[in-house]
Amino acid sequence: MVISRTLLTQLEEAAQIARGLTMDAVEEAKSGHLGLPLGCAEMGAALFGYLLRLHPSEPRWINRDRFILSAGHGSIFLYVWLYLSGFALDELSQFRKLGSNLPGHPEFTVTPGVECTTGPLGQGIGNAVGFAISEKMQIGRLPKGQKILDYHVVCLCGDGCLQEGVSHESCSLAGHLKLDNLILIYDANGVTLDGMLEKTQSEDVGKRFEAYGFFVQTVDGHDLKQFIEAYELAKNSTRPNLIIARTIIGRGIGEVAATPKAHGEGGIPFIKAAKKRLGLPSLPFYISESLKKFFHERRLQWKETYDLWLKEFRRERRSYGKKFPKLWEKKPGENIMDEVFFPHCERISTREAGGEILNALATKNSEIITGSADLFSSNRNYLFRGGDFDGNNFLGRNVAFGIREHAMGAILNGIAYDGVFRPTGATFLVFSDYLRPAIRIAAMARLAVIYIFTHDSIAIGPDGPTHQPVETLTALRSIPHLHVIRPADGEECVGAYAIAYARLDGPTALVLSRQDLPLLGLENSRAGTLKGAYIARRETLYPKVIVLASGSELGLVLEAAEEFQEHVRIVSVPCMEIFETQSEAYQQSVLPETCPLRLAVEAGISLPWYRYVGPKGKVISIDTFGLSASGKILQEYFGFSVERMGDEIRTLLEKA
Amino acid sequence: MVISRTLLTQLEEAAQIARGLTMDAVEEAKSGHLGLPLGCAEMGAALFGYLLRLHPSEPRWINRDRFILSAGHGSIFLYVWLYLSGFALDELSQFRKLGSNLPGHPEFTVTPGVECTTGPLGQGIGNAVGFAISEKMQIGRLPKGQKILDYHVVCLCGDGCLQEGVSHESCSLAGHLKLDNLILIYDANGVTLDGMLEKTQSEDVGKRFEAYGFFVQTVDGHDLKQFIEAYELAKNSTRPNLIIARTIIGRGIGEVAATPKAHGEGGIPFIKAAKKRLGLPSLPFYISESLKKFFHERRLQWKETYDLWLKEFRRERRSYGKKFPKLWEKKPGENIMDEVFFPHCERISTREAGGEILNALATKNSEIITGSADLFSSNRNYLFRGGDFDGNNFLGRNVAFGIREHAMGAILNGIAYDGVFRPTGATFLVFSDYLRPAIRIAAMARLAVIYIFTHDSIAIGPDGPTHQPVETLTALRSIPHLHVIRPADGEECVGAYAIAYARLDGPTALVLSRQDLPLLGLENSRAGTLKGAYIARRETLYPKVIVLASGSELGLVLEAAEEFQEHVRIVSVPCMEIFETQSEAYQQSVLPETCPLRLAVEAGISLPWYRYVGPKGKVISIDTFGLSASGKILQEYFGFSVERMGDEIRTLLEKA
Repeated sequence: MVISRTLLTQLEEAAQIARGLTMDAVEEAKSGHLGLPLGCAEMGAALFGYLLRLHPSEPRWINRDRFILSAGHGSIFLYVWLYLSGFALDELSQFRKLGSNLPGHPEFTVTPGVECTTGPLGQGIGNAVGFAISEKMQIGRLPKGQKILDYHVVCLCGDGCLQEGVSHESCSLAGHLKLDNLILIYDANGVTLDGMLEKTQSEDVGKRFEAYGFFVQTVDGHDLKQFIEAYELAKNSTRPNLIIARTIIGRGIGEVAATPKAHGEGGIPFIKAAKKRLGLPSLPFYISESLKKFFHERRLQWKETYDLWLKEFRRERRSYGKKFPKLWEKKPGENIMDEVFFPHCERISTREAGGEILNALATKNSEIITGSADLFSSNRNYLFRGGDFDGNNFLGRNVAFGIREHAMGAILNGIAYDGVFRPTGATFLVFSDYLRPAIRIAAMARLAVIYIFTHDSIAIGPDGPTHQPVETLTALRSIPHLHVIRPADGEECVGAYAIAYARLDGPTALVLSRQDLPLLGLENSRAGTLKGAYIARRETLYPKVIVLASGSELGLVLEAAEEFQEHVRIVSVPCMEIFETQSEAYQQSVLPETCPLRLAVEAGISLPWYRYVGPKGKVISIDTFGLSASGKILQEYFGFSVERMGDEIRTLLEKA
Repeated sequence: MVISRTLLTQLEEAAQIARGLTMDAVEEAKSGHLGLPLGCAEMGAALFGYLLRLHPSEPRWINRDRFILSAGHGSIFLYVWLYLSGFALDELSQFRKLGSNLPGHPEFTVTPGVECTTGPLGQGIGNAVGFAISEKMQIGRLPKGQKILDYHVVCLCGDGCLQEGVSHESCSLAGHLKLDNLILIYDANGVTLDGMLEKTQSEDVGKRFEAYGFFVQTVDGHDLKQFIEAYELAKNSTRPNLIIARTIIGRGIGEVAATPKAHGEGGIPFIKAAKKRLGLPSLPFYISESLKKFFHERRLQWKETYDLWLKEFRRERRSYGKKFPKLWEKKPGENIMDEVFFPHCERISTREAGGEILNALATKNSEIITGSADLFSSNRNYLFRGGDFDGNNFLGRNVAFGIREHAMGAILNGIAYDGVFRPTGATFLVFSDYLRPAIRIAAMARLAVIYIFTHDSIAIGPDGPTHQPVETLTALRSIPHLHVIRPADGEECVGAYAIAYARLDGPTALVLSRQDLPLLGLENSRAGTLKGAYIARRETLYPKVIVLASGSELGLVLEAAEEFQEHVRIVSVPCMEIFETQSEAYQQSVLPETCPLRLAVEAGISLPWYRYVGPKGKVISIDTFGLSASGKILQEYFGFSVERMGDEIRTLLEKA
């Protein structure tokens, strides 16, 4: 492909003007990062001015190239180029101001054209791998030889992203899966916040990525032609791509460029002089008429491409008729609550029950996919009729993530951002810590990811404290917008999956047992679970004591309280977050103020239960780490026995 | 080095007997992992029978080789070899039983010879890098040409460890720091729990490690001679080492060997036949007389080596006299509480105050080292007279970890396990999630690590929700044995550092502000902080309302309650965990039951405060994610204003 001199000149002008806009925005905000946006200005011009296929008036067009800024601190880079491209952004002077759509780091749904929430370093790379998987999965479901989807997932990252462990996990998997639709651009500016990169890193990044199976190219990031050629090569490669672009951080502000001072706001005092040297007028937020015209024409090209594509899309859809997959149609969540039964057993672990329910759900809902961090056989979330997703089978619905929990979390987010598939993923509850940074962003970006966390307490037994969650439930419950559901038996598990699947405005963590639990035979388990908490067994006279429990402990308290049925109410609390959203009237009907004597029972730390038991109440909990012994011995050892519960209830009743 | 045929034969017998012991232990426990212990039996024989320098009766000898089993699920491997070597282990039949020193995964302090708590994959690699740094730091402090320390840090890891992101972060740093004392042995058995490794991984691990700057060798892990030769080469290399040992997982149980079934307990049914085929007698826990004799002689050699070393050590110590560094003498923590002042300013951020205090502490206590994940300039924990630790300066006390929070956590643990230096490390509070798996183990293993987490609330401002902790304090508080201290001003900060430094039985997280805070001028800030919570301002008459606050919110409530001094008590709660350990009498004196009307104020989620405010109380909190705007605007927006506090106090007073 020959690139015209005129185009190059125009892109060069665009880069300089983008530099000016960057400086103006950061100066106006008095905060923000100048380093990457200035250093990547030429690449920004090449991408948005020439290489990327977008459609600003249809920012979620399914065949757009996905551009992800993993180095989210350079947000103004993204905003400047989206703004120039014609996306519906606020004026750049609103950067980092309350209520604008130009927040400090890019945020999903806040800004048209922003594909995902980035900032915590490395996440965007995992997201990009998720987007790339999502495209492959879509292509796998389209008729062979389809021409509907051929976009690329382009991710711009920095030194920080690549130092983070999640980049290793994600890219090793991307190489394994041969995701040739992935183009990772590495802004190799050799500088980090604290100093020159050489102070902390000596690795040969290119060699590392070759080891992963990437096609690696190195270019001068300021040389438009070199970069464009490398990008075109990458588009046609049969491997995932890394373009190492050597850049000068903060280029354009000579006083700080190529130094750590350029990274953040260090260049602000020199902006006036810098703009002058770049040949830019001093008035802020200047865009030349020629550049306006250039992007106007670019939008027309984009529209033309889009219109052509839309024709093709309609033609294909017509020609395949009913065989054409319904990948992009939004559909309401269906209720499977009344369709799943457990007639075949009296005891079942909730992980096992969960596996059955997930399989039932997935049979009816083809958008569900799942995965595990090497624990399918323990998590039991394998879709038996789903097939394995890999480089040779894009139809597969089971993703073997390997022992890469953090990448799994970031990839699930990527798939969720893309909005076509409904991602679920599994590991042991205790290892939710490994993907916690990604869970946090799923919650913030309101992604409907479902986490399947099995092996939920000390009851797992001999693996010992490293594998026994005690604080983990609480740590998850502390994340805003995340629902944490810990069902007590197979029936509550049906309710848990039903509400998790129906939820589209945030993630859900399903917390499941390894050990078998009795089916409790409660009338209202499924429906009650949808309320977050419910009366599992009502007192026969009036309540003097309310016993609250979640998960495997519910069966224990039901048994322990059998002899006190007249005055003891048992409340099941599978999900605190959902219960907290119920009406005051419902909450009072379950936990009436008039009965302040309470006992809470959970095989984890006591902290979250004080909200319900109050100062006169009692919590049977584990506020230390576990031990290595059989699950039964440990439950006894830590006081989770019917006898102990009975004693505590009796003591409370005596106080009443 | 020529290895005698007799030795090889003896080591081969040792390997087979170790296989028998492994099978017996797992069969007896009915749980545990057979795969690695059987597959690495020859390497175990070579290491413990020949290569490692240990002294079982002095398991913490400072010049021992450190052997770390990163693949902690293979714990019985470690126990068998430690047992044969003569460490004080319980009988192997006690594996995974309550109260034995042979728990399901290796645990620090539980078992003599176990260097660290491993199991969560990848952690051990980071720990090993920490041990290697600790040795280099010690050597840097010894006279030039010293002969006291020349041990190696040997870490056995599996596929899982190397898939985990923390392995990338740790090893990239190890390569950069040229830690030639590190020997990483990769049990490359090509199998993970869920299936063959080729299902999830295609990377060229050797090439990846060469990219990090490692010296990489590949051997047949069952070939004693090859392995020993590679190890000897590694000992003399000038780079960190990776020995890729190709092994057959579960070797010895042909029915499952080389398959995923070999990983865990799948081989149990075939043990009887397997032992027979290996030429082992059927009686359990068999050790041949020749092997007993062999290890008896090995212990004599080890003793001889130790005795020679001790002579040399004493000679060196004598010859250097007072110049000989006091690295290994335990000393009581000194109180710096009365020595640090802030006379120079009325307002100071607690990060800034913390930096001054840390520098004062470190000047007096040379064992303190610190580090940051590329945020020294923001965290302010740089030791100004400490110098930079790197491959050329082992004396440096500032470690630039790079943007590698998880590795930082695991490395701090490694340094703490080694017990010579007092590690502290810093990043933004919100990124504590990135190292959370390592923090959990620090808490479990009771390591006296100090985390310096700055930028502690939405008050950081325009960086927005990705960088604003809201749930993070609670998530940290949920970890057993971790102290989380959030000081309200520079004075409380002194108390916080004092108690963190004095604490030797667990980690402490110091949570510090980015923004300046007024020095509150309270009489008892420092001493009060040591109690976890204290009366910051006592009511002048009697208390009708108690207002609790932590950190930057304390100043706000003190101001807001000024007009209500007669009946409003202000309680500062820098550390809930410490307050919970105070006597009932003290707790009651601060929070008397007779005053149940409470208001808690913290710029984070409300969950942890219900314990103190009760059902009649109120929490001013942030139970959602933050926004991008200036810190002041956000504090106002989320209700953290003097006016709002005043209104809430007034409302409560009206109820009284």
